[in-house]
Amino acid sequence: MADKVIGVLGGLGPWATLDFFEKILRLTPAKADQDHLRIIIDNNPKIPDRSPAILGEGEDPTPGLIATAQNLQQAGADFLVIPCNTAHFFYDRIVTAVSIPVLHIMDEVAAAARDAVRDVRMLGVLATEATMAAGLYHRACGRAGIEVIGPDSAGQRVVNRAIYGVKAGQMGPDVTRTLVQVSDQLLARGAQALVLGCTELPYVLKPHDLRVPLLDSNLVLARAAVRLATGVPQPASTRR
Amino acid sequence: MADKVIGVLGGLGPWATLDFFEKILRLTPAKADQDHLRIIIDNNPKIPDRSPAILGEGEDPTPGLIATAQNLQQAGADFLVIPCNTAHFFYDRIVTAVSIPVLHIMDEVAAAARDAVRDVRMLGVLATEATMAAGLYHRACGRAGIEVIGPDSAGQRVVNRAIYGVKAGQMGPDVTRTLVQVSDQLLARGAQALVLGCTELPYVLKPHDLRVPLLDSNLVLARAAVRLATGVPQPASTRR
Repeated sequence: MADKVIGVLGGLGPWATLDFFEKILRLTPAKADQDHLRIIIDNNPKIPDRSPAILGEGEDPTPGLIATAQNLQQAGADFLVIPCNTAHFFYDRIVTAVSIPVLHIMDEVAAAARDAVRDVRMLGVLATEATMAAGLYHRACGRAGIEVIGPDSAGQRVVNRAIYGVKAGQMGPDVTRTLVQVSDQLLARGAQALVLGCTELPYVLKPHDLRVPLLDSNLVLARAAVRLATGVPQPASTRR
Repeated sequence: MADKVIGVLGGLGPWATLDFFEKILRLTPAKADQDHLRIIIDNNPKIPDRSPAILGEGEDPTPGLIATAQNLQQAGADFLVIPCNTAHFFYDRIVTAVSIPVLHIMDEVAAAARDAVRDVRMLGVLATEATMAAGLYHRACGRAGIEVIGPDSAGQRVVNRAIYGVKAGQMGPDVTRTLVQVSDQLLARGAQALVLGCTELPYVLKPHDLRVPLLDSNLVLARAAVRLATGVPQPASTRR
């Protein structure tokens, strides 16, 4: 059976989309160009920022998200992925606007957590303030019987700064140190694994920075996309 | 004036497309997502290999190239780039199949060479056997009064192995060493600068590997795309 075409609702932000694209290439066993998957990326960073809209103070990104999703379907995508956690606040509106499947990043992470940690009960999540406030991980993991904890308000400010830093091209070791401190607080409170619940974070926090499994939501989504496109199961490991 | 939308006829190969995407992001001055450019990438590695077709022994990629170019125009691209040198053998057929501009990678490199080297007379080019046999750089540089030289047949085999190695994900330092040897032969014959005339090569040969200017065709094309999309001139430097 021919591989399915992956549609990427991208640009949210562009660095996260680049990271997602690279992960797809690394996950695809290929000896020649033609072994790789067809991927149509609409990197549309002109869509308004998701976070302020969710927190009640910014332009609504829904029309841009829907138009971009429909554009990808029209261009030949067999299913869609959205390598942006915060945008999943608008997931239901995107799904109803297209007639192809749309993977759900939090549902994929919840499933990957069960593979990565035996009898997992509690996950620490680093994500935007909007993702946390909207309870996107709380709901998806709750359905899987997993409790979700996030940083306190000082820790949340550190995470927000890191995320918007990556969007501005800042990806230095200082940022990593502050994120490790926030992560350590979550581990001390009982988190058995840490979720990078924002697709900008893989640039500044990597598996070797922590002593517990790191669930990179962008990598989990890339694995799910390759699995769906090829029909070949992907390893459950949390590291690439 | 609003930025133009860049359409990327990609997947030729996918690693080269990834590198092109990253170069666009690095070249775009941005403090937030919305400062970045909209880029629609059709990463279509299922298009048959260009080289064997040009050398008379493989499936014709023209229908796939044309369909992908038209798909990008339909999806909203204002102009197209093709981050694959060899595919420029089919440039005229692609241009006539769409009604939006298509940048020409060799023409951009010839212009960049004049900026990089004062009174440039001779360039050494590393490219696929097909690009060299078809004289793609010879013609574009010839129009600009620049002579092009390429490796001897043993050197060309080294270059071909390096290119197809990158396509298979092999990007080690051994490959770089062999490419530096081939490059040194071109410099000894009078080349004033070296052109990476294949978009896979930036993974295995970088500016610091050589003692003369390196013109990376993928970077030159990314600069031209950002310039056309934003209307802002890009620096002529050969290094990013």
